[in-house]
Amino acid sequence: MSDTPEASEAPETPETRIISRTEAYQGAFLTLESVELELPNGHRTTHDVVRHPGAVAVLALDADGHVLMVKQYRTAFDREMLEIPAGKLEPGEDPLSCARRELEEETGFVAGELRHLVSIAIAVGYCDELLHLFLATNLNSGSAQPDTDEFVEVVWVPLADLVQAVQAGELKDAKSIVAVLLAQHEQLAKA
Amino acid sequence: MSDTPEASEAPETPETRIISRTEAYQGAFLTLESVELELPNGHRTTHDVVRHPGAVAVLALDADGHVLMVKQYRTAFDREMLEIPAGKLEPGEDPLSCARRELEEETGFVAGELRHLVSIAIAVGYCDELLHLFLATNLNSGSAQPDTDEFVEVVWVPLADLVQAVQAGELKDAKSIVAVLLAQHEQLAKA
Repeated sequence: MSDTPEASEAPETPETRIISRTEAYQGAFLTLESVELELPNGHRTTHDVVRHPGAVAVLALDADGHVLMVKQYRTAFDREMLEIPAGKLEPGEDPLSCARRELEEETGFVAGELRHLVSIAIAVGYCDELLHLFLATNLNSGSAQPDTDEFVEVVWVPLADLVQAVQAGELKDAKSIVAVLLAQHEQLAKA
Repeated sequence: MSDTPEASEAPETPETRIISRTEAYQGAFLTLESVELELPNGHRTTHDVVRHPGAVAVLALDADGHVLMVKQYRTAFDREMLEIPAGKLEPGEDPLSCARRELEEETGFVAGELRHLVSIAIAVGYCDELLHLFLATNLNSGSAQPDTDEFVEVVWVPLADLVQAVQAGELKDAKSIVAVLLAQHEQLAKA
């Protein structure tokens, strides 16, 4: 189409590109796709990719530096885990509304202030989940409305104790660790 | 069997328990299981769980405070991502050996010191992956031996820049964020 150097002389950088996407399994909210790729060397390969609707998680901090944590059974580990409140995005739901909803449903607390911290890619190697982390402050009691089949215990833990639990390897949930370390970083920056 | 109060009088706490596990899809390294549960209220439900062999990731820090990062195409996001070097555990492989191997294969660097930081659950809601994070120091040049079909670009980035990139939402990979914030925390504690 043109004789500009960009078009005629610059060598094309070979890139990885997707050849095809095939649904291999459709679950309740996860879809597993088999993705065929062409690599920069021309080889073809197939990767499994978990498609996820996205999620939010909320670090809710009170005026005394305590964090609202939830304990719940997690099937993947067949035991109770300690986490910050979190949940999946509903179709068409924006992350901020989802964060407000999940916090109140799971814990009964309403955030006077809800601020986006960062959005993180949870498992880049095989899943497209983007998780949006929020910081909730000025908390007020509302009413918890867990789903009928949701069993969640709410506990308050000092932020400093959570930082120690991260370093001791006791707090294992990745999203909670990121939120705790970022919240602590903000506290230190303010001090 | 006994008349102790624990056995005869304490009410049993109803717990969630697994009724059955069915393999729904078997991928190259991921298995998707359909797990049937009995909930504390007696209801039954089914959860999808991704079974993963476990993985390691290595934050390699040089004497000037620069971190060895890799850029590579990630199918789930159909673009290049910036991450610390990482890889899956081979069957029977211990995390420390895996960390040493992956660091050298991907970047060509050998760690004089390799220390376990923490092990984190990447996506507790649907995956049993445990990711073991390591800090590598006293780095020496070896020889990179990427797989034939692995295309990885190595870049050095100051740790302080990575911390800023986390806060600015530019570094999105969860495992890298945890490693960067923990490494910075250690540096601050030393200073």
